[in-house]
Amino acid sequence: MAGGGAAASTLSSPWRLLLQRALDANAHLKHSTFFQLATVGGGGRPANRTVVFRGFQEHSDKIQINTDARSNKVIGEIKEWPLGEICWYFTDSWEQFRISGIIDVIDGSSPDPAKLQQREKAWFASSVKSRLQYLGPSPGVPVANDDHVKDVHIDPSAGPVEAYCLLTLDPEKVDYMNLKSNQRLMFTRTQEGDESGDWMAKKVSP
Amino acid sequence: MAGGGAAASTLSSPWRLLLQRALDANAHLKHSTFFQLATVGGGGRPANRTVVFRGFQEHSDKIQINTDARSNKVIGEIKEWPLGEICWYFTDSWEQFRISGIIDVIDGSSPDPAKLQQREKAWFASSVKSRLQYLGPSPGVPVANDDHVKDVHIDPSAGPVEAYCLLTLDPEKVDYMNLKSNQRLMFTRTQEGDESGDWMAKKVSP
Repeated sequence: MAGGGAAASTLSSPWRLLLQRALDANAHLKHSTFFQLATVGGGGRPANRTVVFRGFQEHSDKIQINTDARSNKVIGEIKEWPLGEICWYFTDSWEQFRISGIIDVIDGSSPDPAKLQQREKAWFASSVKSRLQYLGPSPGVPVANDDHVKDVHIDPSAGPVEAYCLLTLDPEKVDYMNLKSNQRLMFTRTQEGDESGDWMAKKVSP
Repeated sequence: MAGGGAAASTLSSPWRLLLQRALDANAHLKHSTFFQLATVGGGGRPANRTVVFRGFQEHSDKIQINTDARSNKVIGEIKEWPLGEICWYFTDSWEQFRISGIIDVIDGSSPDPAKLQQREKAWFASSVKSRLQYLGPSPGVPVANDDHVKDVHIDPSAGPVEAYCLLTLDPEKVDYMNLKSNQRLMFTRTQEGDESGDWMAKKVSP
């Protein structure tokens, strides 16, 4: 899930090496691939939730996250205001990555065939068990009782269901802090919209 | 630091009991008192960083956080737009608390004597070692070399230095999720600005 293999072969950006090292150093912790994603919702309200890192999109620095398209409010708000900041704290190595960038919402209604292909790829990269959640009750809806649909089945070869939505965050700035060595590095992308991405690194006080 | 004792004696709000249980269940992990705080900065950009829970303010549900007033940009942005959302994930018990509310920035320039007193109290509640960081170089400033001021001394009985700033977040909504039991509860404060706070709880699908 951490996209370790792919990351190692396409380490174009300087912060990717630090992130890969952190992932490796914390790999024994299940939660090492969890991070917090902040976005801005209606009325300028900050929203913050824990999500799972689903690896990088192939040949790019875009960070992949799975989400449920039925949380219409959230998806609508991100489409409306696609800025996000990831805060990823590695509890064992005491490293923090703050990654800010633009979020692309890729649901089944995307008109771009390449994006639909990415969504399909990400769907099949998820475990069958994790795909099942998109067939359960809509997230956030009031529950009358505990009679959840427990006998849901899914065909492992079937493509993404409607509720499945892929988010990709395209990093523009990465603020790296190592609390053990007390070192902080600020990475800024110098060329907008450039897939290969030129990055500038600056050492700043922690 | 977790304010466990104070919390146990003033459990006015229903979500406080769940939070206290999570703190107790995860107390063996140093990082259990760390959470991510999202705010909205200039140009509507979400900002997200790891901070340390410094307990609740006495006789209230306000969550205390220490910060450096010299990160002028951050402090100014929060004063300008005081909405925040905490995302607190407990890695051992698989519980997530999303706590949204209004942030009060209490630096040395506060005209309110009661707030200045809270700031002083929070200062003395911090370890002498953690107070030292407010005498170091300003956070986020580019570093020319590694010759940091290493021989900084502080008088343990001296009050808060100028750089020390207390933030308090006054919760309005708490979204609780237990990923082991798959239970989700939504707490909403029904009376605005009421210190004692009436809360409504609703069970929702996860």
